[in-house]
Amino acid sequence: MNLVHYIGFFAGLLTSGAAVPQVMQTWRTKHARDLSMSQLVLLCLGMLLWLIYGLFLNDLPLIAANIFSICCYAALIAMKLRFDRKDAAACAQAME
Amino acid sequence: MNLVHYIGFFAGLLTSGAAVPQVMQTWRTKHARDLSMSQLVLLCLGMLLWLIYGLFLNDLPLIAANIFSICCYAALIAMKLRFDRKDAAACAQAME
Repeated sequence: MNLVHYIGFFAGLLTSGAAVPQVMQTWRTKHARDLSMSQLVLLCLGMLLWLIYGLFLNDLPLIAANIFSICCYAALIAMKLRFDRKDAAACAQAME
Repeated sequence: MNLVHYIGFFAGLLTSGAAVPQVMQTWRTKHARDLSMSQLVLLCLGMLLWLIYGLFLNDLPLIAANIFSICCYAALIAMKLRFDRKDAAACAQAME
């Protein structure tokens, strides 16, 4: 690998790994109201296309990085659905 | 462009464009507590490396997409710093 490949490798590592602290924070705080659902869904769809692109090119790093990211963003979507619903129920109860 | 290029093009469009609804929601709600600062900083650094990678390869779509994304995530970092500080000040005032 030359310098350019190393830069690409670390770039991919950072942008894929970036989802981890978000998943951890959302799981810890059980709060996801400030996360945009549109962003999460667009990221999932985009990464699904990157995964298909990687499968076409038979590019293992691209495939692995996108499977990992899709799992993280799918987890965030699931948490947002669950925690936002709990928030709304708590609000409704408080207003009764 | 063949099918594989189109898939890559739309993948890039979706993952770059995904930041837009997040920027709009954060600007509208003036609230960013649930966003992970580590995620935003890691994304900015990763995209800076992708930008350098794109400059080395002289790949215009990669360069343009990453400049756009860096602007979005830098805006989110600035908003988070500002809105979180305002939140903390409001909390401190409420507890006085």
